[in-house]
Amino acid sequence: MTTPPLSDERIAAVRDSFGRQGLMSTLGAQLSTLSRGEAAIRVPLSERVTQQHGFFHGGVIGAIADTACGYAALSIVPEGKAGLTAEYKINLMSPADGELLVAVGRVLKPGRTLIVCQAEVFIEKAGARKLCAVALMTLCVVDTLSAI
Amino acid sequence: MTTPPLSDERIAAVRDSFGRQGLMSTLGAQLSTLSRGEAAIRVPLSERVTQQHGFFHGGVIGAIADTACGYAALSIVPEGKAGLTAEYKINLMSPADGELLVAVGRVLKPGRTLIVCQAEVFIEKAGARKLCAVALMTLCVVDTLSAI
Amino acid sequence: MTTPPLSDERIAAVRDSFGRQGLMSTLGAQLSTLSRGEAAIRVPLSERVTQQHGFFHGGVIGAIADTACGYAALSIVPEGKAGLTAEYKINLMSPADGELLVAVGRVLKPGRTLIVCQAEVFIEKAGARKLCAVALMTLCVVDTLSAI
Amino acid sequence: MTTPPLSDERIAAVRDSFGRQGLMSTLGAQLSTLSRGEAAIRVPLSERVTQQHGFFHGGVIGAIADTACGYAALSIVPEGKAGLTAEYKINLMSPADGELLVAVGRVLKPGRTLIVCQAEVFIEKAGARKLCAVALMTLCVVDTLSAI
Repeated sequence: MTTPPLSDERIAAVRDSFGRQGLMSTLGAQLSTLSRGEAAIRVPLSERVTQQHGFFHGGVIGAIADTACGYAALSIVPEGKAGLTAEYKINLMSPADGELLVAVGRVLKPGRTLIVCQAEVFIEKAGARKLCAVALMTLCVVDTLSAI
Repeated sequence: MTTPPLSDERIAAVRDSFGRQGLMSTLGAQLSTLSRGEAAIRVPLSERVTQQHGFFHGGVIGAIADTACGYAALSIVPEGKAGLTAEYKINLMSPADGELLVAVGRVLKPGRTLIVCQAEVFIEKAGARKLCAVALMTLCVVDTLSAI
Repeated sequence: MTTPPLSDERIAAVRDSFGRQGLMSTLGAQLSTLSRGEAAIRVPLSERVTQQHGFFHGGVIGAIADTACGYAALSIVPEGKAGLTAEYKINLMSPADGELLVAVGRVLKPGRTLIVCQAEVFIEKAGARKLCAVALMTLCVVDTLSAI
Repeated sequence: MTTPPLSDERIAAVRDSFGRQGLMSTLGAQLSTLSRGEAAIRVPLSERVTQQHGFFHGGVIGAIADTACGYAALSIVPEGKAGLTAEYKINLMSPADGELLVAVGRVLKPGRTLIVCQAEVFIEKAGARKLCAVALMTLCVVDTLSAI
């Protein structure tokens, strides 16, 4: 399926929203890619994001999976709308032992009221990339003013 | 059901583990209560933990729900064991608009291999407490050395 | 909280809807109780509902948890509306080894667009009742004509 | 990745287990394909499996998604072991309006203690196939005698 590229306005709106998320800045997270129906967020390892073993904390994995899906949804909703996370489920499949954590969120099912997204979270260590978590998420389409 | 209180060693082990979680320190989170099968974590509002509206970020809600259940599980496993989060599902029911976020994790079903926990997350604003999220979580019982 | 009882019309609408569900009849399921925000469904053991060991099949547990929450939601929505299951998560905590399976669905969070429900599923054997599964579910409020 | 084909003994064990599931027979379900890490189950429309509109009931969708993942897991565990569903989450994305329902379960992450599977459920109508549900599931590896 060929889809029109995102407008500059939409890209700017997403980047502006991301920039206003204090938590993303706290975690050292960056919005690395954004296209229609897909967004990726990456976090380099730092002391700020660890669990008790020095690996990435599961809470960081969930936070960037959630956020990546939110922006994937935001990339496809009509102007003036946003996707608000109603719920998600995440399976943490492997320890997030590495230097870089990358969450890729994708729209599985766009809808007028609900959007279903999927996230894959990868851990990179010494150049190798491994799937460490998968998430399935439901977002509710709301007016931008109430959500973004 | 009357249960014996937690041993001082177990309490110390949990507090030590919590203290080594970089993310909890980053978020300004505190382990506020701990008893057999239950743990609570609280986070005061700060710029470090917000989404784009200034409310608590959903990622923080998920992170402390996950961690509260992890320590609820740790409070009941045999010595030398820990509970490792295998997966969770969370419903974000209301905006986390307030000064303090509190996650209470409880063991629903203890098992030798798997532990099922439930978390309730409350938002406090001007003295009123409101349920803003619920989570259902599965933890895998593992040897401490590999998990904590 | 004191709530007004369900109207006879609403009760009749729920029972009529339930009666038209071929699957519920196939499973031998009955809508046993219905009140505002809560519904219970029971299924006696028969060969129709077993897994390979002769216990209740997990699919039956999921089906009646889903349906109980659907009718719990239907009991609270405005006239002309219904709750359509968007998603659920279920933990199967114990083998459903017994003579009777009972799912109790309850509304946790009523909303105009989304309703969050919780289900507990109990297995009864020789007079003892045991919690064997818990579910957390999101329903979307839709016009009745499109959903019921 | 090239994987060795399933042994005749394993295929026979799966088909025997499936044949002993009363619910699958009740629903008119068939195990249509089975390979290493993947299993598919199909159910033709009949009055036995409907909701109140005459579409496939969500409970049937969940039941065959669960079962397909269970056999996908069973196809990869060591002899003497089985995969027992610990929990799953399912998103019902479109009405299951059609003549045939097909669930395809796949192993995402094999492990010694836990196996993570994913299911896609398709509805076929007048020759067209549409994705109507996705599920994410955790199975616990147990001794066969206790589970199958």
